[in-house]
Amino acid sequence: MSEPVLISEVGPRDGLQSIASVMATPDKCAWIDALHAAGLREIEVCSFVPARLMPQMADASEVVRHATSLPGLTVMALVPNLQGAEAALRAGAHKLTIPVSASEAHSLANVRKSRQDMLREVRSIVALRNERAPQAPIEVGMSTAFGCTLQGVVPADEVVWLADELVQAGVDEVGLSDTTGMANPAQVRQLFGRVRSAIGERTGAAHMHNTRGLGLANCLAAHDAGVRTFDSSQGGLGGCPYAPGASGNVVTEDLVFMFEAMGIPTGIHLPKLLAARSLLQAGLPQEPLYGMTPLAGLPKGWQQPD
Amino acid sequence: MSEPVLISEVGPRDGLQSIASVMATPDKCAWIDALHAAGLREIEVCSFVPARLMPQMADASEVVRHATSLPGLTVMALVPNLQGAEAALRAGAHKLTIPVSASEAHSLANVRKSRQDMLREVRSIVALRNERAPQAPIEVGMSTAFGCTLQGVVPADEVVWLADELVQAGVDEVGLSDTTGMANPAQVRQLFGRVRSAIGERTGAAHMHNTRGLGLANCLAAHDAGVRTFDSSQGGLGGCPYAPGASGNVVTEDLVFMFEAMGIPTGIHLPKLLAARSLLQAGLPQEPLYGMTPLAGLPKGWQQPD
Repeated sequence: MSEPVLISEVGPRDGLQSIASVMATPDKCAWIDALHAAGLREIEVCSFVPARLMPQMADASEVVRHATSLPGLTVMALVPNLQGAEAALRAGAHKLTIPVSASEAHSLANVRKSRQDMLREVRSIVALRNERAPQAPIEVGMSTAFGCTLQGVVPADEVVWLADELVQAGVDEVGLSDTTGMANPAQVRQLFGRVRSAIGERTGAAHMHNTRGLGLANCLAAHDAGVRTFDSSQGGLGGCPYAPGASGNVVTEDLVFMFEAMGIPTGIHLPKLLAARSLLQAGLPQEPLYGMTPLAGLPKGWQQPD
Repeated sequence: MSEPVLISEVGPRDGLQSIASVMATPDKCAWIDALHAAGLREIEVCSFVPARLMPQMADASEVVRHATSLPGLTVMALVPNLQGAEAALRAGAHKLTIPVSASEAHSLANVRKSRQDMLREVRSIVALRNERAPQAPIEVGMSTAFGCTLQGVVPADEVVWLADELVQAGVDEVGLSDTTGMANPAQVRQLFGRVRSAIGERTGAAHMHNTRGLGLANCLAAHDAGVRTFDSSQGGLGGCPYAPGASGNVVTEDLVFMFEAMGIPTGIHLPKLLAARSLLQAGLPQEPLYGMTPLAGLPKGWQQPD
C-alpha cells in the first residue's frame, strides 16, 4: 500500500477569485459540501481581502463559518496581510495560507511589498496566531517559485533562502507554486529536493498550473521528490487571464484520477468528485470548466477503492 | 548535456485517419514540409489501407514519394498487413509500423485477426522486407498495452510475451501504445521496465494518449524507464471519437516544450513547430486543434537551443 497523498482543493478561493462572475454564497456552500462529501479533507475556501477589491470574496466569513461545520475538514483561508489574518481567525478558519513571492518583481507588483516587507508581515501574522489560535497551522504558498513573467528566471538559491527565512519566521509549511506555468519536471524535482534538504518536513504543497499542459507531469515529479500535498482546483477553475482557454490550476479530477490509478490513496471518491462538478457548474452556469477525466469518464473496469 | 529524445510525429497518419475531413494532398505535403523544417526527423506520413475503407489515406503513395524527398527524414508508413507492406515498400517508405493488439478482444475487433494470426502476418511482412528492402526497419506499435475498452485489464505478462514473440519474428522495435487512455505513470514505468528487461534495445516508442489528461505524465514516466522515442501528434489531432473534446494523441507542441524545458534535446525548433500548426489548420479549417503551449505561448525568457 502506497503512502497516501493529500489533495488540497483551492477552487473556492483561487478559482472563484480569478473569474469575473460572483458565485452566490449558498452555491459556494453547496459546492463545498459536495467536495467534502467526495472525501476532500482540506479546502481553501476563501480569501480575506477587502470586498471592494475582490467582490467574489465578500462573504468570506460566512463561507468559513459554514465550512467549519463539516466534520473532519481543514478549512483554509488565504490571508495576504495581518488584517486578513485577524478576520480569518475571528471567523474560525483552521489554517491560514499566505502568498509570498519568490520573485521580487512579482512581490512588488502583486502585494506592493518587497520580499523583506512580506517576511515582516509573516512574522506579525505568526505572532497573532501564537496569541489567538496557537493550534492553527500557517502555510506559505511561495508564488513564482519556478519562474516569473515579470523578471523571467527566479534563482533557485533565492527560493531556498526564502523558504528558510519563512521557517525561521515560524511558518509551519512552505509550498512552491508555479504561478506562471513555467515549471518543468526536472526543475520541480530539483527545486523541491533542495527545499526539502533545507527545511525538511516543513516542505509543503506543490501548487502546479497547467498553463502549458505540464501540470500533472509536474505533480508526478513533485511526488517523486517526496511531496505529499498537492493543490488543485475542480474543473481547473482559475484560468490564466492572459491566455484564454489555457487553464490555470491543475484539475482536481485529473489529479485524483492519476494518483488513484497509480494506487496512491487520495481518500477521494472519484464518482462523487465528478458529481460535485455539477454543483460548481450550477453556481457558475456561464463559466467554462476544464478537465479530461470528466469528459472521457472513468475507464472500463475502474474500481473505486473503499 | 542530456541524451536526446526522438519525437516521432504521427499526425499525418494517426491524426488524419481519425477525423471525417479529408486533407488535400498538397496541404498534407505542405504540412509535412513545415514539420520537417521545424526539425522533425521521423514522421508517420500515412497508412496503406484500401481507399474505400479509409479515403483519408487514398494518396498514401504520393505522400510517401513527396516525404522521401526531404533530407534526413525517416518516412514511416503504417501497414496493417502484407498487402499494405508491399505497397509501402513500392512507394519507397523508409520504415514500416505494424499495429498489433496486446488485447485479444481488441485484435479481433480491430483487424479481425487473433494475436497468433497477427504474428503470422508480421512474419510474412518481415520476410518481404528482408527480400525487398533489408535496410527498412520494422516497428510494431503494440496497441491496448495498458488496458482495453473491450476486455478491460490486459495482463502485463501477455504484453511481455507478445513483445518477445515479435522480436523473435524479426521486428526491430516494439513500442507500447496507450490506445485507450488508460495508462498511469506507475504502470508505464513498470511495463516499459519489464519489456526492456525482456527485449532490451528493441524496446521502441511510447505512444501515449491524453484521454484523461495523463499524456505528458506518462511520457515523463516512460522517459524515466529509459524510453527515448515518443509518438505524438501536432495539435493533438486524432481525437477520441467516444469523448468529444477529449483529445487522443499527446500534443507534439506540449511534449517538445516539456523535454526542451527539461534540457533534454529534441532537435526541434519550437517557434517553427508552432508555426507549422497554421499549415495544419489551413488544410483542415473546420478541425479543432488542441495544445496548451500554443495557447499560452512560450514563457518569457525562453531560449531556443541552437
